[in-house]
Amino acid sequence: MPTYKAPIRDMQFVMHEVFNSEQHYAKLGNEDATPDMVDAIMSEAAKFCEEVLAPLNKVGDQEGCTWVDGEVKTPTGFKEAYQQWVENGWPSLALPEEYGGQGLPDSMGSMVSAMVAEANWAWGMYPGLSHGAMNTLGMHGTDEQKETYLTKLVSGEWTGTMCLTEPHCGSDLGLLKSKAEPNSDGSYAISGTKIFISSGEHDMAENIVHIALARLPGAPEGTKGISLFIVPKFLPDGTRNEVQCGSIEHKMGIHGNSTCVMNFDKATGFLIGPENEGLRCMFTFMNFARLGTAEQGVASAELSFQGALEYARERLAMRSLTGPKAPEKAADPIIVHPDVRRMLMTQKSFAEGGRAMMTYATFLVDTVKLSKDEAEVKAANDMLSFLTPIAKAFLTEVGTEAANHGVQIYGGHGFIQEWGMEQIVRDNRISQLYEGTTGIQALDLLGRKILMSQGEALKGFTKIVHKFCKAEAENTELKGLVEKLATLNKEWGDVTMQVGMKAMQNREEVGGAAVDYLMYSGYISMGYFWLMMAKTAQEKLDAGTDEADFYKAKIATAKFYFDRILPRTESHRLMMMNGVESTMALDEDHFAF
Amino acid sequence: MPTYKAPIRDMQFVMHEVFNSEQHYAKLGNEDATPDMVDAIMSEAAKFCEEVLAPLNKVGDQEGCTWVDGEVKTPTGFKEAYQQWVENGWPSLALPEEYGGQGLPDSMGSMVSAMVAEANWAWGMYPGLSHGAMNTLGMHGTDEQKETYLTKLVSGEWTGTMCLTEPHCGSDLGLLKSKAEPNSDGSYAISGTKIFISSGEHDMAENIVHIALARLPGAPEGTKGISLFIVPKFLPDGTRNEVQCGSIEHKMGIHGNSTCVMNFDKATGFLIGPENEGLRCMFTFMNFARLGTAEQGVASAELSFQGALEYARERLAMRSLTGPKAPEKAADPIIVHPDVRRMLMTQKSFAEGGRAMMTYATFLVDTVKLSKDEAEVKAANDMLSFLTPIAKAFLTEVGTEAANHGVQIYGGHGFIQEWGMEQIVRDNRISQLYEGTTGIQALDLLGRKILMSQGEALKGFTKIVHKFCKAEAENTELKGLVEKLATLNKEWGDVTMQVGMKAMQNREEVGGAAVDYLMYSGYISMGYFWLMMAKTAQEKLDAGTDEADFYKAKIATAKFYFDRILPRTESHRLMMMNGVESTMALDEDHFAF
Repeated sequence: MPTYKAPIRDMQFVMHEVFNSEQHYAKLGNEDATPDMVDAIMSEAAKFCEEVLAPLNKVGDQEGCTWVDGEVKTPTGFKEAYQQWVENGWPSLALPEEYGGQGLPDSMGSMVSAMVAEANWAWGMYPGLSHGAMNTLGMHGTDEQKETYLTKLVSGEWTGTMCLTEPHCGSDLGLLKSKAEPNSDGSYAISGTKIFISSGEHDMAENIVHIALARLPGAPEGTKGISLFIVPKFLPDGTRNEVQCGSIEHKMGIHGNSTCVMNFDKATGFLIGPENEGLRCMFTFMNFARLGTAEQGVASAELSFQGALEYARERLAMRSLTGPKAPEKAADPIIVHPDVRRMLMTQKSFAEGGRAMMTYATFLVDTVKLSKDEAEVKAANDMLSFLTPIAKAFLTEVGTEAANHGVQIYGGHGFIQEWGMEQIVRDNRISQLYEGTTGIQALDLLGRKILMSQGEALKGFTKIVHKFCKAEAENTELKGLVEKLATLNKEWGDVTMQVGMKAMQNREEVGGAAVDYLMYSGYISMGYFWLMMAKTAQEKLDAGTDEADFYKAKIATAKFYFDRILPRTESHRLMMMNGVESTMALDEDHFAF
Repeated sequence: MPTYKAPIRDMQFVMHEVFNSEQHYAKLGNEDATPDMVDAIMSEAAKFCEEVLAPLNKVGDQEGCTWVDGEVKTPTGFKEAYQQWVENGWPSLALPEEYGGQGLPDSMGSMVSAMVAEANWAWGMYPGLSHGAMNTLGMHGTDEQKETYLTKLVSGEWTGTMCLTEPHCGSDLGLLKSKAEPNSDGSYAISGTKIFISSGEHDMAENIVHIALARLPGAPEGTKGISLFIVPKFLPDGTRNEVQCGSIEHKMGIHGNSTCVMNFDKATGFLIGPENEGLRCMFTFMNFARLGTAEQGVASAELSFQGALEYARERLAMRSLTGPKAPEKAADPIIVHPDVRRMLMTQKSFAEGGRAMMTYATFLVDTVKLSKDEAEVKAANDMLSFLTPIAKAFLTEVGTEAANHGVQIYGGHGFIQEWGMEQIVRDNRISQLYEGTTGIQALDLLGRKILMSQGEALKGFTKIVHKFCKAEAENTELKGLVEKLATLNKEWGDVTMQVGMKAMQNREEVGGAAVDYLMYSGYISMGYFWLMMAKTAQEKLDAGTDEADFYKAKIATAKFYFDRILPRTESHRLMMMNGVESTMALDEDHFAF
């Protein structure tokens, strides 16, 4: 396994220098959240992630979870790490003080989660899923429900899950069958089978609070007849509830996390939110869950970059094409070879570009949750709603690419489990699937958000980019990049218009273009974040700094991104423009003979 | 695991109709190899692959190999399947009659291997590695060596390996350290450690013939001081030789194949070929081994396509954007959704396009081995040498892409081992690494083959494409595709010239452009093979046929490839044209802070 080192300087750069955390937090009423305070938390969390979680990442993969008679044993060390996590107060960091939280802004929780994700994603899913349950309870629970469940989740004594998927339906929740029959005491008897329930059963906490979707008697069919329930493993009076883990899945990766089949057999549940509006309530949480998943892509890029960089500096093979660079050695370290560098720079640009995108998004979450200015909340919410499918799908796609570069840089050794590089590929592969596949995110972006808003959702973002490019038009050092981004930003609008026109003729065009459109949008958005970073770095250099190498590296990476990654937009554009006709031409029966 | 069905009709189409196997074989003196005879062999092999090998594919993954005290146990059923394989005479199919072979052309062996690869790649590597050893012995062994070893390999009683890699060197064999000390009887004492030796030890055959690289005393350093040796597990007199399996690797995939650390401790070896020319001798074999690996990419595309197609027809989720397609069901099968189709068509176009490329290449191998016409042999050899790195790297890269689409189409289920889709991703991942990584193939193509021949190697291929496009210029049905290909074919030459010019200024440009250039070349070459298939299909339709749907599907898939895959060339072109400067700009010490 690569030795994980939290990328503290990079995180500080993005939070404090690019996005001015001090001003951001102060504006939202968190004057205490100075860079020094943020850095202190960052450094404590980094220590925990590096020393406690990272060494367990391989253990988790190799041991996996074990299921015996409905009980799930997590890998060696997972439980103890969780105890430390709880004792140190990490679960409550960014949660409301009224439920025992420390009241810090959401983005500070995300900052910590980002390191947890890099150090040990499978472990991080246990506290991570609680987050979803807490958000749902916080937004839709009654005071009593909050008092009973939320406080225990905030302290970390209990963990939570989200129970959506059933064997026959995942993306299409309208098909779900689980039932909720009213009991005489106002509770419900929940019956049905849920699958793919992450952290559904485990030995790390004393109780597990399931948030489950089910149908009330006589509820309308489809998505409009689904309600949301709290179904705790142990009821408030201590009784064991009739929700049991029937088995755990054997998966490609994230072996350290239990992925459970959960059988609800007239389990006692309590309605949250209005009847039949469960899906809407759930979706208030889904955007945050999707951002959490986006983080997995960034984490995989970072971890595989760290591993690959170490190896590329040490492994010797052949000489540089321009003559020996380490003549005292039997061969040059492979980092001298342009193709190895191309892969390293690609990983680096995805990890750091992704971090910038995620930080921007989590700052938007702060604004949505904390701002008192309604217009500001709406604007932040709109922007978040636009960026979320891009972050979720684009960052997880490029995360898998980066992880594969990591394997490739190791050559044959990359395929061997011992080195830990292939684990990153396996672990990250799920991120493109859960919380809505890449295809689902793409439809959400293009179909639901952009085209249904007549392009308004896109304009919110392209306007910002336009303004930025205009302001930097005379930036001597970055002129070339600014021009490229401005051109693409304009093209983005044109392409959207063209796809929209095609879609008016044939609705299939939306589905046919969606993933190309999403990737196209992802590359351009990341281009904007890279240019912001380059601009900030340039300002620091112009002002004089003793960290010139650090800032120059940001500008060099931005230039690489613009030269060697951003041109990918062009193929995506051309493929979209070629339309959906040939994709749909083949009769379903003629795919194979 | 997807239920494997050999794509017989597709194979026949390519072999007989697109590349006219009857004429090809007759010209090389194999008049017996009529389409009927080829089909009979194909159908027998298909039966074996479908019924015996395919069911063992998952077993191999789940059980893996076990190492105890130097002995390796292969997964349940592997040994018995191998016995059947030998009893049915499959090992000797395409080997010379003088060593007990059946004397059929190489491409017929490849046709069988292609199905083995699709059904169970890990199993196929046991007989597959023998092939490498046989080629080396056949080309460089003495008559006595051939008599002793080759006949046993041909019959399948023994298997073979290729022992190249050492812990500190893989791509750069110049660094290898294994030693060969002369014994008084003319044999050599071989000492050293070899790693990643596929099929290095197992329980399937009574003896294993290792072909190993080592250095003679006083040999020049680097690649010019390496010699080639036969090192059998059991010596001809029955003595156990001092070559032992020290351990087996735990890998991302191909668990059914043993990947061994082989310790040579003064093992008795016999020189093959001239002293110090081992690497050259090995490379006569490497081209064939690389083609064999290319097949893995095609196999993964085919198998994952089959699995995904089955699921896409059965799994129900949401309604088509143009209204219900299966109104009697709770939702439409997901094959109606454009993005699912896009992935299926991509897999299909890679599997079938790759099959055409491979068939063309194996027909070239026939010509190289069997033609009596020297000029024809040279031309075929040049073409093969040009196409091999493209086939090896491009087809394995798109094989991994296709396998990932297979996972994606299954949604969350794709991540679960039970369904078998994620195994294809894991198994195929090695194909981009062994027998020379994608980066190594790319340097071979652009640096060694194209630029060192002043572009002649490329012209050999682009001329054929040019001629083809000219001949089809008035093809009414395919005009659009012909024009696109002709344009790209011309551009290919221009791009090569531009990269060459850049490389004259800075040699790093070759390494910086190599992988983009290789992928660019791969997409265009596959475009040519798709257009050939479309043209053949159109001729059949024009002539009248009762298989109209089959031929129309070929044309539809070609159109999809041209619309939705081929535009990828444009991004690769732009990225190459942006040069290597930003890739190399960062100081080695400034990649991370």
